[in-house]
Amino acid sequence: MTSARPSLPKPIIVIAPDSFKGSLSAEEVAAAIGAGISAAIPDAQVRLCPIADGGEGTLDALMHAGGERFTVNCRNAAGQDANAPVGILKDGSAVVESAAIVGLTDPAGTGVAVQLRTTLGVGDAIKSLLDRGARRFLVALGGSSTNDGGAGLLVALGAVLRDGAGEAIPPQPAQLHRVVSIDVSALDPRIKETHFVAMSDVDNPLCGEEGATAVFGPQKGVAADQVAVIDSALRHFASVLEPALGRRASDQPGAGAAGGLGYALLMLGAQFRSGAETVADHIGLDDALAGADWLITGEGRSDAQTLHGKAPFIASQRARRAGVPTTLLSGGIDRTSLEKLHTGFSGCFSISFGPMSLQDAIAQAPGLLRDSGEQLARLWQAGRSC
Amino acid sequence: MTSARPSLPKPIIVIAPDSFKGSLSAEEVAAAIGAGISAAIPDAQVRLCPIADGGEGTLDALMHAGGERFTVNCRNAAGQDANAPVGILKDGSAVVESAAIVGLTDPAGTGVAVQLRTTLGVGDAIKSLLDRGARRFLVALGGSSTNDGGAGLLVALGAVLRDGAGEAIPPQPAQLHRVVSIDVSALDPRIKETHFVAMSDVDNPLCGEEGATAVFGPQKGVAADQVAVIDSALRHFASVLEPALGRRASDQPGAGAAGGLGYALLMLGAQFRSGAETVADHIGLDDALAGADWLITGEGRSDAQTLHGKAPFIASQRARRAGVPTTLLSGGIDRTSLEKLHTGFSGCFSISFGPMSLQDAIAQAPGLLRDSGEQLARLWQAGRSC
Repeated sequence: MTSARPSLPKPIIVIAPDSFKGSLSAEEVAAAIGAGISAAIPDAQVRLCPIADGGEGTLDALMHAGGERFTVNCRNAAGQDANAPVGILKDGSAVVESAAIVGLTDPAGTGVAVQLRTTLGVGDAIKSLLDRGARRFLVALGGSSTNDGGAGLLVALGAVLRDGAGEAIPPQPAQLHRVVSIDVSALDPRIKETHFVAMSDVDNPLCGEEGATAVFGPQKGVAADQVAVIDSALRHFASVLEPALGRRASDQPGAGAAGGLGYALLMLGAQFRSGAETVADHIGLDDALAGADWLITGEGRSDAQTLHGKAPFIASQRARRAGVPTTLLSGGIDRTSLEKLHTGFSGCFSISFGPMSLQDAIAQAPGLLRDSGEQLARLWQAGRSC
Repeated sequence: MTSARPSLPKPIIVIAPDSFKGSLSAEEVAAAIGAGISAAIPDAQVRLCPIADGGEGTLDALMHAGGERFTVNCRNAAGQDANAPVGILKDGSAVVESAAIVGLTDPAGTGVAVQLRTTLGVGDAIKSLLDRGARRFLVALGGSSTNDGGAGLLVALGAVLRDGAGEAIPPQPAQLHRVVSIDVSALDPRIKETHFVAMSDVDNPLCGEEGATAVFGPQKGVAADQVAVIDSALRHFASVLEPALGRRASDQPGAGAAGGLGYALLMLGAQFRSGAETVADHIGLDDALAGADWLITGEGRSDAQTLHGKAPFIASQRARRAGVPTTLLSGGIDRTSLEKLHTGFSGCFSISFGPMSLQDAIAQAPGLLRDSGEQLARLWQAGRSC
């Protein structure tokens, strides 16, 4: 029918998905959807803007917009020598992704019990970047395997935890109850001139019923009978640290992010920001949406939680402000959340073309994304031609 | 964004799916999709036109457009007393659906081996409708469990098969090789003034490598070593019947439909027509598409075969002629057939919202259809607003 009508203007389509965690990076997801869109609408101008929410994949999404990426030596969550990718954006901001250094999906780092895991490596990475001159940091907190109150970060940056005998104590949850004093005199002096943005959607405090250990500990391997033990150790650690630094932060929202890594960053003066908003700002999502006709976003699985600051929802809000409708294409959609999802999305679709196993969906994800993108574009185009 | 633009004209949306075989009737599928469309676009004018292709569900689809529906006594495929629904359309055409009388999904009728199954019941139904004055018949051939060359139909209508001793022989595949003569003198005289349309997409001849038994026998339960036996029996039956009726039909396309029921109807002068085209004509699909903006069709599973005369493809062709784009919403889509399906459809979608089992998809089909229809409409509307 389109042949009988005047040809449509070339559309501008923004493709801004989050990663499909454990399967595809946001960049891979965007590329696959984009290929399908271009197959359906060859003259479409397609803008690929992979996004992230401060968890795994945040570095990748930020670096997609340009900058310098390199590998630094930094310890894993088990305290072993390892290395991890970091980046410096075009505006000079350094990017450190906790999930890439002490992540839940790292088999080596999670080879020891959570009581022994540490965020030393995050401090190592920051130190390397300080050495390269970075004084503004974006630290992505999501996806960590640690629960050390950020003690490791502080130790890597020069602080020393001491027991009653004056001996240095390793920054592990199992040791924190033994801390009697914390020497902050050797903290890296460059920190004073450094601005940290902690990217997180978590607003939990460090301790208590809503604290890091009680809420996020179990998914990291904290046994039920250890929750109170570790929570108490973190509370003790904070009670020694706060007088030493002359600042309080344990009750601040976000202190409980990344097993208390958020707390340590707050103690260094960090500003907390939504990961998805920060990424959207840095990748120029608003610029990409300017003059666009349609946004496609997505993630591994969407449900009512998607509306609580997840990257696809933040993208849809930016699109709405730009007058651009947003369609959601995810690995799976929780049907019981559709009514809520409709507040953000003009159509919520999964990549599956019929009954299939999760395993097959993951294995075939690139092809499913491409083909799904093509179907969405063909239908959208039919609407446009109407 | 729509709020900032002049409101869109009220769209006219036609919903013309086939049944989801073994799960939902075409009417149920259409109603579920329609509910989703109306939720997304409350001011849409929704036209529900369930369709069928000459198989199971054809009677339902035809009766949706109006007419009188009733139950007649007619034997099942096992020759037992049973009853089945038939109909008389508003234009006076009688509708007989083979799948409803001697169907593959009837446990009683298929309780005997295919060698013993018979189409007597189809003849019974025709006779009942002749008694009600019907002289035009639409006979849907798809979905039968029988392979009797239509001998049962002819016997129910008065023909007598006899063996060498002049004894009557039951019209079953296992008996046809014994037929020495066929007495057609007692064939119902009203047949001469009756017009039969046989609805089928099968163009196979009665016998041989492309015949009813070789091609369709196995799926009805004909064992590999019985194919040649039954094929030979049908060939013998035809060699006796044709001189008796003074007509030849065994090589005609469609003679092999419904295990040779097509042959018997051809021998009675039937005209063969595509089931999907015939249904589309009788339900007034072209009228429904006049002035419409969008057609949604679908079926249980779509693949390259869909383009070979299946109801959703016929619907899409009608829509194309009316300048209406068509979107396919099926239980499952064969991704390897997408390129072909794109020739008929502006977007091919499944009802699933993520990985799930076939069993769950069937159990949840009404909700999945409704929710999918809503998503399609929301996306289509986003395209319209563009």
